[in-house]
Amino acid sequence: METEIFFRMATEEDLSEIVAMLADDVLGSQRERLEDPLPESYLRAFHAISADPFNELIVACHGNKVIGVQQLTMTPFITHQGGWRATIEGVRTAASVRGMGVGTKLINWAIQRAKEHGCHVIQLTTDKSRPDALRFYERLGFEATHEGLKLKL
Amino acid sequence: METEIFFRMATEEDLSEIVAMLADDVLGSQRERLEDPLPESYLRAFHAISADPFNELIVACHGNKVIGVQQLTMTPFITHQGGWRATIEGVRTAASVRGMGVGTKLINWAIQRAKEHGCHVIQLTTDKSRPDALRFYERLGFEATHEGLKLKL
Repeated sequence: METEIFFRMATEEDLSEIVAMLADDVLGSQRERLEDPLPESYLRAFHAISADPFNELIVACHGNKVIGVQQLTMTPFITHQGGWRATIEGVRTAASVRGMGVGTKLINWAIQRAKEHGCHVIQLTTDKSRPDALRFYERLGFEATHEGLKLKL
Repeated sequence: METEIFFRMATEEDLSEIVAMLADDVLGSQRERLEDPLPESYLRAFHAISADPFNELIVACHGNKVIGVQQLTMTPFITHQGGWRATIEGVRTAASVRGMGVGTKLINWAIQRAKEHGCHVIQLTTDKSRPDALRFYERLGFEATHEGLKLKL
């Protein structure tokens, strides 16, 4: 399997598989809606993401199967001498390939992409109820230096 | 002072005052460069921010003085049924007005703006070495549900 995984920008045709991965998760099952047809809000978000050159929905593929997803945004901030940051969101792999290193490949791809773009840091937040995810990112070199705060609107 | 504070988008002419506020801080003093003229990287970031309709550098003003700054980005994600999120970064107030509620007004302004845009959540990360900042955000209703991870590139 090692040599056959590749990454590409998601297309509209990938959306159902992406939402299926997002929903196949303890937290995701409570907040996603995997329906046929998909709720319009996913399509609207997909088009808004596609319209932004610095917001990328990326899928990992194995042959013609989508086996992983992540979203990478690159944002200019005024802090850190006007530096760009990359942010990773919504990392998921298909249940059929879990434990096979696809998540690691996804994150390493994002790190490389962020470097190419000239970002000085790559960041993400992970729910404190996911200790395994925290350890996964720490193994990849991330440091939990910050509190991640949210306020529902 | 209460009634005289107002908020507006930052202009290029505000940049020196903004960088002065960012640099007047334990962490910021190590990573910003308050020079005359300002390093070009701040101007490039300012123009990149201005070119994005969903990335806003906001200043709080009192009369003709800039007394606070924050950056608000609004981003469409595929997670949460394709929901938009608002992210706050680089919140600072001028030393001369600290403890006068300007920070609270800035954040409440951002919350209102994020609601108007239809964001389902507003989020930020705060360095674990800033316990006062954490308490400040918790008082405003934010919950530290996530770990904030960073990897320098």
